[in-house]
Amino acid sequence: MPRYALKVEYHGAPFAGWQRQKDHPSVQGAIESALAKLEPRAHTIAAAGRTDAGVHGLGQVAHCDMDKDWDPDRLAGALNFHLKPAPVSIVACAQVAEDWHARFSALERQYFFRILCRRAPSTHQAGLVWQIGHQLDAAMMQDGANHLIGNHDFTTFRSSICQAESPVKTLDALRIETVDTRWGPEVHFHVRARSFLHNQVRSFVGTLERVGAGAWAPARVGEALSACDRAACGPVCPPQGLYLAAVRYPQDPFAGA
Amino acid sequence: MPRYALKVEYHGAPFAGWQRQKDHPSVQGAIESALAKLEPRAHTIAAAGRTDAGVHGLGQVAHCDMDKDWDPDRLAGALNFHLKPAPVSIVACAQVAEDWHARFSALERQYFFRILCRRAPSTHQAGLVWQIGHQLDAAMMQDGANHLIGNHDFTTFRSSICQAESPVKTLDALRIETVDTRWGPEVHFHVRARSFLHNQVRSFVGTLERVGAGAWAPARVGEALSACDRAACGPVCPPQGLYLAAVRYPQDPFAGA
Repeated sequence: MPRYALKVEYHGAPFAGWQRQKDHPSVQGAIESALAKLEPRAHTIAAAGRTDAGVHGLGQVAHCDMDKDWDPDRLAGALNFHLKPAPVSIVACAQVAEDWHARFSALERQYFFRILCRRAPSTHQAGLVWQIGHQLDAAMMQDGANHLIGNHDFTTFRSSICQAESPVKTLDALRIETVDTRWGPEVHFHVRARSFLHNQVRSFVGTLERVGAGAWAPARVGEALSACDRAACGPVCPPQGLYLAAVRYPQDPFAGA
Repeated sequence: MPRYALKVEYHGAPFAGWQRQKDHPSVQGAIESALAKLEPRAHTIAAAGRTDAGVHGLGQVAHCDMDKDWDPDRLAGALNFHLKPAPVSIVACAQVAEDWHARFSALERQYFFRILCRRAPSTHQAGLVWQIGHQLDAAMMQDGANHLIGNHDFTTFRSSICQAESPVKTLDALRIETVDTRWGPEVHFHVRARSFLHNQVRSFVGTLERVGAGAWAPARVGEALSACDRAACGPVCPPQGLYLAAVRYPQDPFAGA
């Protein structure tokens, strides 16, 4: 069966998360239903990252197996037609080898997080950022974040329901920048790792927000990490500022698309 | 009565436009209703620009007259509380002189327009951009736009229902730039004038899109302008990419806010 890689963008708000669930809308379920309109049978797709309820996709990658040979652009267009009006969009599609796997072939996941710092409610960015009413010191946050980069036991920054076998992961990058926008100052987090623990990015961001607000000294992030104790984590931040931004593979499957 | 200037942000989608209407929701009506929660009586506010249905506010400016002396920050906060859940937000508030007028004191209006160029439907920017499925040549568009800058009879680029006394206006700037975003290439228009005719910006953008797509030579924009004939205009583009970005006054009323 020909296999296709799909680059998927979605708005997290209406979904219980990526993963198909029995009684709740999911991004996976929406795409599988659209696939069933094209080739009527049960479809099961695999994705690079199983995002939580409310988390957005910008460059999520999934793969599907089809009975027929599809022109990749036509397949993307047909899926987008059937996905309407769900806020899920196939932004690229490419045929891949039949042993290529969206999850297991991935070398790195990149997440992106947006905090908007302003008092007045945002009318255009609501649902797309974590809005807080105070300013943040991004340099202090970066000092705190630097304790997290590298190979560590991340038990502190892992949800109690995380199913990963080991809490030891390598965090390749956690870069924080301030961005002035037309609607106010934002703080952006760029996070890269081969793989992540459940709630790891939101545990990082919620903890580093405490540093940026002046409530935590940067060194306390290192102490929290060393404690290997979930209770040492700062508050886990809400999901709506989080985006699965990109997935890296040995070769970009969409390079020619 | 103390007078307050309000900087107002709003999402245009749910509104029939800025101006109060009998049977349709309006931004003006939403703010006047919130004011009536604070000082129960009829309120009438004035704004720098009367935006159309679907057009967004980023830096709209209005003024209101109050019976009581309000701390400006408290007034903004109380209005935002009562405006919920309407997507209207008071992002700044300042007391001004009693003869200061949001409309008549304004020296210049600045509009901002976003086109998103990509085929797949946008899940995060829907309603915030005019999305088109093809690429645009921004340099050609700027060549076309340059014919419009300056003092001209803009009859061609004016809605047939425009109520302005004269079609002669001075366009101070029409700058076009391309911006690469995480969700695809955008073309941005930055437009400045003391005042605008009805549908003038959307007539410009719709016409210049034809230039960017290669359907019109840039010189045809100058010919259309010289014709002083509404029929010579290109198509008027949809409203959801348009933002009233800022209003300039002799002194920035929010400078200290």
